[in-house]
Amino acid sequence: MLEETKQLIDTEMTVIEEGDVATPNGYVAGGIHVGLRREKKDFGWLFSSVPANCAAVYTQNAFKAAPLQVTEESISVDNKLSAVVINSAIANACTGHRGIEDAKQTQKWVASKLQIPEHHIGIASTGLIGEFLPMQKIEYGVNNIDIQNDSNSEDFNESILTTDKETKHIAVQVTIDDEVITIGGTCKGSGMIHPNMATMLGFMTTDANVEVEDLNSLLKESVDETFNMITVDGDTSTNDMVILLANGQSHNQPLTKQHPEWNKFAKAVQYVSQYLAQSIARDGEGATKLIKVNVTGAKTKQQNNVIAKTIVGSSLVKTAIHGADPNFGRIVTSIGYADHTINPNEIDVWLCGHLLVSKGMNVSFDELDLKAKMEQDTIEICAKIGDTPHKSTAFGCDLSYEYVKINALYRT
Amino acid sequence: MLEETKQLIDTEMTVIEEGDVATPNGYVAGGIHVGLRREKKDFGWLFSSVPANCAAVYTQNAFKAAPLQVTEESISVDNKLSAVVINSAIANACTGHRGIEDAKQTQKWVASKLQIPEHHIGIASTGLIGEFLPMQKIEYGVNNIDIQNDSNSEDFNESILTTDKETKHIAVQVTIDDEVITIGGTCKGSGMIHPNMATMLGFMTTDANVEVEDLNSLLKESVDETFNMITVDGDTSTNDMVILLANGQSHNQPLTKQHPEWNKFAKAVQYVSQYLAQSIARDGEGATKLIKVNVTGAKTKQQNNVIAKTIVGSSLVKTAIHGADPNFGRIVTSIGYADHTINPNEIDVWLCGHLLVSKGMNVSFDELDLKAKMEQDTIEICAKIGDTPHKSTAFGCDLSYEYVKINALYRT
Repeated sequence: MLEETKQLIDTEMTVIEEGDVATPNGYVAGGIHVGLRREKKDFGWLFSSVPANCAAVYTQNAFKAAPLQVTEESISVDNKLSAVVINSAIANACTGHRGIEDAKQTQKWVASKLQIPEHHIGIASTGLIGEFLPMQKIEYGVNNIDIQNDSNSEDFNESILTTDKETKHIAVQVTIDDEVITIGGTCKGSGMIHPNMATMLGFMTTDANVEVEDLNSLLKESVDETFNMITVDGDTSTNDMVILLANGQSHNQPLTKQHPEWNKFAKAVQYVSQYLAQSIARDGEGATKLIKVNVTGAKTKQQNNVIAKTIVGSSLVKTAIHGADPNFGRIVTSIGYADHTINPNEIDVWLCGHLLVSKGMNVSFDELDLKAKMEQDTIEICAKIGDTPHKSTAFGCDLSYEYVKINALYRT
Repeated sequence: MLEETKQLIDTEMTVIEEGDVATPNGYVAGGIHVGLRREKKDFGWLFSSVPANCAAVYTQNAFKAAPLQVTEESISVDNKLSAVVINSAIANACTGHRGIEDAKQTQKWVASKLQIPEHHIGIASTGLIGEFLPMQKIEYGVNNIDIQNDSNSEDFNESILTTDKETKHIAVQVTIDDEVITIGGTCKGSGMIHPNMATMLGFMTTDANVEVEDLNSLLKESVDETFNMITVDGDTSTNDMVILLANGQSHNQPLTKQHPEWNKFAKAVQYVSQYLAQSIARDGEGATKLIKVNVTGAKTKQQNNVIAKTIVGSSLVKTAIHGADPNFGRIVTSIGYADHTINPNEIDVWLCGHLLVSKGMNVSFDELDLKAKMEQDTIEICAKIGDTPHKSTAFGCDLSYEYVKINALYRT
């Protein structure tokens, strides 16, 4: 379990570490190799036995990839999905009219195969931008969707990866109205990661019965605090999407914000979202360390967010942490260009628990002890900007030789 | 000579490649080793035989280093400087009241040594943030300022460097009112480089007689088009400053914007500024290639600027270029997150002269020829966003293993 998410767990929540998007009742997920990647699984599906209420958030990049456009249009029909199919290796972005037609053709094939309406099928792609999908391979994938076998969700978790080193998944359970409710999730990173969204696909499922309007606002709030607070390299992709499905198979009474146990449910969704987002940061391209940045006391929450994300996104902070170098000047510098309105004489900065800057000035610290702490695999930076109660946390990773290597040779 | 600045030269301008800040009449510059760095020169001075009209621009980082605060206050007295002293290795930033006092003490020593008023002395520092200056070394430096020897300006050019691999300097001459006017400049980079300003110090001098108000607006305009359009790593430093001195020793009639040959003078200043800015981009930390990005046709000049700087600052674009990989998807992606209001279906993108994206869609191109061109040491990206006449050019460099190496181990 990720150390950082432990604090979100309370006694009311059961964490299933091996759980994923198929753990809640009524979901099946799987994946196969169709030849888009050399050897690895590259085509996955997620299926709900009944149409599930659906909430979704999409990239804010002006170049929104074809599958996202098609999925958004489909969800808008009645806010329900029964299935999502995903391919890795090719993003189907910058592919114009033909890209849209390819995504729609995939919907048609899936509708025919699973006997469900086209608009109940979400499409997601991740990979290289500017190439067309080899549609015969996609058709082969659709023909081989297997929703009878509910034991191969690990194949799904693998099939959506690109340069990720590890699969990323979790599930939690809470009891609401004496019914056990499960929430599961699977996602992929791992470069071109920056709010708002990232080159990331996130799929969350629950068997709870949830009103779609409240499901939507819950997803947006959760994503703002989690997926939108991570950065790997500051690049926001064309293909990012997070989908949350609620199929009601736990047969609870419909959950709304007015329900006395809504917060318990919301907290569980937040936990899954946070866990997945942090998994992405920790597995950022070439990453050797997770960086957690807490910022408190700026005039607004938004200013806190900007400062936290700027610190964690600074190439100079990232390289210093890669080298276990307590170069706090870089932290201070990034605060100073993140927000020109701060008062430098009010800033305190801590690195791995050591106070390094007090009221904008350097203070002496135990460098040997700090350097030893910086060798650990999670590095925490705290910055106090002022005295307001606002708090923000952002997550990222160090910048390594490996990041350069991965990205200098990605396409070729 | 840098290829990119050749276009700025016209027959009216003579370029002196070996020229620098001491080339115009009435200036002397030098530098010595005082022990701030291990072996290299680390303390420099620039001296004008008469008080020169002075224009300056400063970092926009909220943490403005002590020497900048002291220099800004001094210049505000009567807009004149006679001398500037600079140290490398230590930035004197985040040093609170003591940092200010140290900068003022340096002024006092220089004033006494050179017999000029304290407020006619500019102070600049570059290097590690959060450490105090060892004042006995600074005092040693001041005591050894030698303004009699006008042949050691190359020592000045060296003394201001940090991780720069090369000195950066140029001078040009134009004839105005039958007088030869010389404009010279010296600067340093080379990490923490991002508009607006960068970890850079730029010093420009001219022997022209120029009204201070017009000198100020000319410097601001030139910096906006040059120093503020380069990025190495997106980090804006605490210590950036560009100073332009005009000491009138060519004895021309005072130049103002109303003078019929003002544009000739302005163009020469712009040339020096552009040359120095590009030298910084090309010598960015770990850089192996200069990246030039032209963006045309956005709704406003400001949007053009943002898009150009976002492309050239994208870690994914920078690593792809490092690997000579024609991964145009990353260029398109960076345009899309730089400005959410663009119309993706209107975008054209060229890389090294090859059209890769037309109306937002990939087009086929000669990959072998393009890859060969990408092995060259200057890479040009062009993006057409729309049909307005606005144009912007930004400069940067690739992201290499060497950048990570330099910055993972900078402080230790």
